[in-house]
Amino acid sequence: MSASFTVHHRDTSCGARLGSLITPHGVIETPIFMPVGTNATVKAMTPEDLRDVHAQIILANTYHLYLRPGHRLIEQMGGLHRFMNWSGPILTDSGGFQVFSLGELRKISEDGVRFQSHLDGSYHVLTPELAIGIQESLGADIIMCFDECPPATAEYDYVKRSLEMTARWARRCKDAHRRDGQQLFGIVQGGMHYDLRARSIDDIRSIGFDGYALGGLSVGEEKEQMYGVMECCAPLLPQDSPRYIMGIGAPEDLIEAIWHGYDMFDCVMPTRNARNGMLFTSQGRINIKAKIYEEDGGPLDPQCGCMVCRNYSRAYLRHLYRAGEILSSMLNTHHNLHYYLKLMQDARSAIRENRFDLFRRQFISGISKEKPFEGGIHSCLE
Amino acid sequence: MSASFTVHHRDTSCGARLGSLITPHGVIETPIFMPVGTNATVKAMTPEDLRDVHAQIILANTYHLYLRPGHRLIEQMGGLHRFMNWSGPILTDSGGFQVFSLGELRKISEDGVRFQSHLDGSYHVLTPELAIGIQESLGADIIMCFDECPPATAEYDYVKRSLEMTARWARRCKDAHRRDGQQLFGIVQGGMHYDLRARSIDDIRSIGFDGYALGGLSVGEEKEQMYGVMECCAPLLPQDSPRYIMGIGAPEDLIEAIWHGYDMFDCVMPTRNARNGMLFTSQGRINIKAKIYEEDGGPLDPQCGCMVCRNYSRAYLRHLYRAGEILSSMLNTHHNLHYYLKLMQDARSAIRENRFDLFRRQFISGISKEKPFEGGIHSCLE
Repeated sequence: MSASFTVHHRDTSCGARLGSLITPHGVIETPIFMPVGTNATVKAMTPEDLRDVHAQIILANTYHLYLRPGHRLIEQMGGLHRFMNWSGPILTDSGGFQVFSLGELRKISEDGVRFQSHLDGSYHVLTPELAIGIQESLGADIIMCFDECPPATAEYDYVKRSLEMTARWARRCKDAHRRDGQQLFGIVQGGMHYDLRARSIDDIRSIGFDGYALGGLSVGEEKEQMYGVMECCAPLLPQDSPRYIMGIGAPEDLIEAIWHGYDMFDCVMPTRNARNGMLFTSQGRINIKAKIYEEDGGPLDPQCGCMVCRNYSRAYLRHLYRAGEILSSMLNTHHNLHYYLKLMQDARSAIRENRFDLFRRQFISGISKEKPFEGGIHSCLE
Repeated sequence: MSASFTVHHRDTSCGARLGSLITPHGVIETPIFMPVGTNATVKAMTPEDLRDVHAQIILANTYHLYLRPGHRLIEQMGGLHRFMNWSGPILTDSGGFQVFSLGELRKISEDGVRFQSHLDGSYHVLTPELAIGIQESLGADIIMCFDECPPATAEYDYVKRSLEMTARWARRCKDAHRRDGQQLFGIVQGGMHYDLRARSIDDIRSIGFDGYALGGLSVGEEKEQMYGVMECCAPLLPQDSPRYIMGIGAPEDLIEAIWHGYDMFDCVMPTRNARNGMLFTSQGRINIKAKIYEEDGGPLDPQCGCMVCRNYSRAYLRHLYRAGEILSSMLNTHHNLHYYLKLMQDARSAIRENRFDLFRRQFISGISKEKPFEGGIHSCLE
């Protein structure tokens, strides 16, 4: 269990729960979505903008910051919070996911992973101990164990051997972790195999962490597979610790996960799709590039109260996108993050009032009425 | 003379003057610098950001907005102010400068200019009447006559014939202008030839406009030539009308122009150089890419009170630039525009206290102590 996490209320209609997580940089109300700030910046947003959309905690990437500008430099500059001028909580991933996404550029051994930088081709070895050391230098409030994240297509035997190593790495991470005031979360693997997920949860629980994350989702599997893993794992995870699903997802994925009792999420979808002109609205997803919005003087989302919807027309947003203007990324990102964080706020209200099951059904029913969207590509690297 | 422009004070030490210009969207205190918002957005800045740096008036480009998204669309959306959500004054140029910058893509006749769009190669004809019509549709507070802007290398005879046509075009612009509440400024040409500048001023004054601009500067000439034209024209222009030098310039150019009695300026230098990592500070220009700033935890400019200098280190700004982050353009632009607009504010204070001549000497002396800067390219197209 975690001394800093409290479940305040469990929805009587489903597994959803309302919680709070205390960190050195503030209290996080859960369920919560964490905007991704890969390179020590959430793309196209100032910290002030993040406050405006009610971001409570952001995520930064160990892999990227280790390579550039370097964790030692950030430590010397007073840590990541001060470096990027974000005074709220930060979670850093361990670099595992990014390293395994490198494909041919990396080689895995019991010790760790040897990889080539995507920036300059230089060679590096990331071990559980180094991953923790980097995250201690960065000084995030919540840090993650170094894990292996096999692809969705990995064979059963590979996944089994992999999660055993991930458990040994988790032990090494816990042993290596020294810095006070930082919570360390363990990561559950096991692919789409329920028995392996159960085995991994046993392994990771037995080591004991401040929180538990599901890794290895949103790596190319079908939505039904993802939802199946969520459902299988939820009852096996500690009830009184925060539960984080890494790298998801679409709004409906978050709603599904919250329904099962998960608390924390991160994904590049709202920010990256924003830069590609894909915007989330109460009426469905909008491709702001589309000709249909050329003379549309109305707000992006009439139901939305964000700075963008209050002040700009769809016609203007389309113009900015077509002209390749930086303001396009700024406004689109602002709106999409507002959408995600408002959705979390609405979810918390629904849980508080024991109506999250209805909330979910209404949300899914709205989604199913949407026209298919052609531009909504999704991957976990910003 | 202009009913809306008032000179409140003339500095006793030089030609500098303090004025105010009333427009339907607010009063502008002069001397003033106008940030350039080519495509109905000052790149990387929201209107709120522009207020933060105390922008009083911004400039937008007729040529760009005519081609994309089209002036009719903007008119239909309630005009440029509403379209871009900027409630302050706007000045639009006539498109002349941009069209003449197209080189081989345009053909000049007495009627106007036939040109090919830089976007899709489509053919268009811009005439004085159309340039006014477009600007009326956009609805700017101050609009400009359509003029021919010959290159700095143009022959005397060419410049002479050109300014004669520019005068005929100015007459046509004035005759075509119908919209109330819009001030129309005339443009003086004449290249680097003082007699032709005098001739052009005579022509344009005799037609009579709400304000007078010098065109054809910052087109490749030496600084001494530019300053010579400023000096030659100042006493010939009406004393009680606003005077605008188009497309300048570096901070020292603005100071020089103010000293001679000019009131309004625009240039892409602060915004475009910002995106290229060139930043203006009280200690001189900084190339934020430079290795020397890698571990520099100090503010960009210790003398500056802007949002960027209050919150971020040089090391962080360098990191953002190297990582190609959008926030780099956002923060750098914010700082550079703050620098320019603060310089104008300081200039106005100095004029009010009759010490602008000293202010100029101190500023030029500071500039001359700067190390040469390798990255400070300058042209007038954003």
